[in-house]
Amino acid sequence: MEIMRVVDELVCTRRVPGLKASSLRILASQQGALSVATDPVGVPVGKWVFTTSGSAARYAMKDPKVMTDLTICGILDQWED
Amino acid sequence: MEIMRVVDELVCTRRVPGLKASSLRILASQQGALSVATDPVGVPVGKWVFTTSGSAARYAMKDPKVMTDLTICGILDQWED
Amino acid sequence: MEIMRVVDELVCTRRVPGLKASSLRILASQQGALSVATDPVGVPVGKWVFTTSGSAARYAMKDPKVMTDLTICGILDQWED
Amino acid sequence: MEIMRVVDELVCTRRVPGLKASSLRILASQQGALSVATDPVGVPVGKWVFTTSGSAARYAMKDPKVMTDLTICGILDQWED
Amino acid sequence: MEIMRVVDELVCTRRVPGLKASSLRILASQQGALSVATDPVGVPVGKWVFTTSGSAARYAMKDPKVMTDLTICGILDQWED
Repeated sequence: MEIMRVVDELVCTRRVPGLKASSLRILASQQGALSVATDPVGVPVGKWVFTTSGSAARYAMKDPKVMTDLTICGILDQWED
Repeated sequence: MEIMRVVDELVCTRRVPGLKASSLRILASQQGALSVATDPVGVPVGKWVFTTSGSAARYAMKDPKVMTDLTICGILDQWED
Repeated sequence: MEIMRVVDELVCTRRVPGLKASSLRILASQQGALSVATDPVGVPVGKWVFTTSGSAARYAMKDPKVMTDLTICGILDQWED
Repeated sequence: MEIMRVVDELVCTRRVPGLKASSLRILASQQGALSVATDPVGVPVGKWVFTTSGSAARYAMKDPKVMTDLTICGILDQWED
Repeated sequence: MEIMRVVDELVCTRRVPGLKASSLRILASQQGALSVATDPVGVPVGKWVFTTSGSAARYAMKDPKVMTDLTICGILDQWED
């Protein structure tokens, strides 16, 4: 699982039905690369989190049919840059 | 899910039957590396999109038997370079 | 399977139910990048280990429904930096 | 799916039974890294192709039990270096 | 499938039950990064091999329940550094 930081919400009006109404977050990796994750936890912008990828990302959603490949697993409360 | 830009359509007359008649797009990553994705959304060239990979890429197609490993999930309307 | 070093425990009070009460470790790759793994072995901080990723990471847990994508497989007793 | 170039055939007399009699090709990525793919299309050396990876690579073979993680999907007829 | 070189055997007395008694090899990538693979072929140290990853790595073992993510597929007899 990767350690990443939430940098923004993703507002996307036009998306595939497979993502349903999932909350989407823009995350930055430790090296600064951006990606998009589904968020079943409800994480505020600025927090460090860890994420699971691949088929585990789908199973980590409350609805396992959501077509994600990256899901936030939890908040790292005391992580520092 | 990765943030990528659509740079071209892919015309390919000779391909494996498993890809059927899926629309194919050439995408550039944020670092400029090119890859090929199936497009169930219908995205014009030049748009920024986010994509899902791995087995999720198949499930995100309307026909889940399409043999892709990268599918466009949605358009990022206000993304800037 | 990757060769990594255990650098810390991960204490995380708020996480997705899919991770249950699994022990989590912070690992560093040979290049120093940090990630998070589930630990069914019980490895002390400082040890070198090898890890399995993807769907194998779930099957390597005693409870295969844990939503991990990286699991410690074993300790490398005589590995040196 | 990745864009790669066929640089050689792979002749390998001793391999796992799971690969059966599949044609194997040595491919170079756009950055020049070499890998090995199964080829259900029959691609001559020198051609640019696109490839699918992960579990999709198995399903893209005519025989889905072939133990590959990279399969050629189609030929890019007009791709230039 | 990746092209890698066998650099050592891995002796590991304490490992997860999911790996059973599989032979483990330490491999170097073409760029020199080290990883660990299961070896159903029986490859001597020093040989170049190609490997399959992800779920295919499990299916390529004689016992498909072995919890690996990297398995040696065959020996490249005439590969040179």
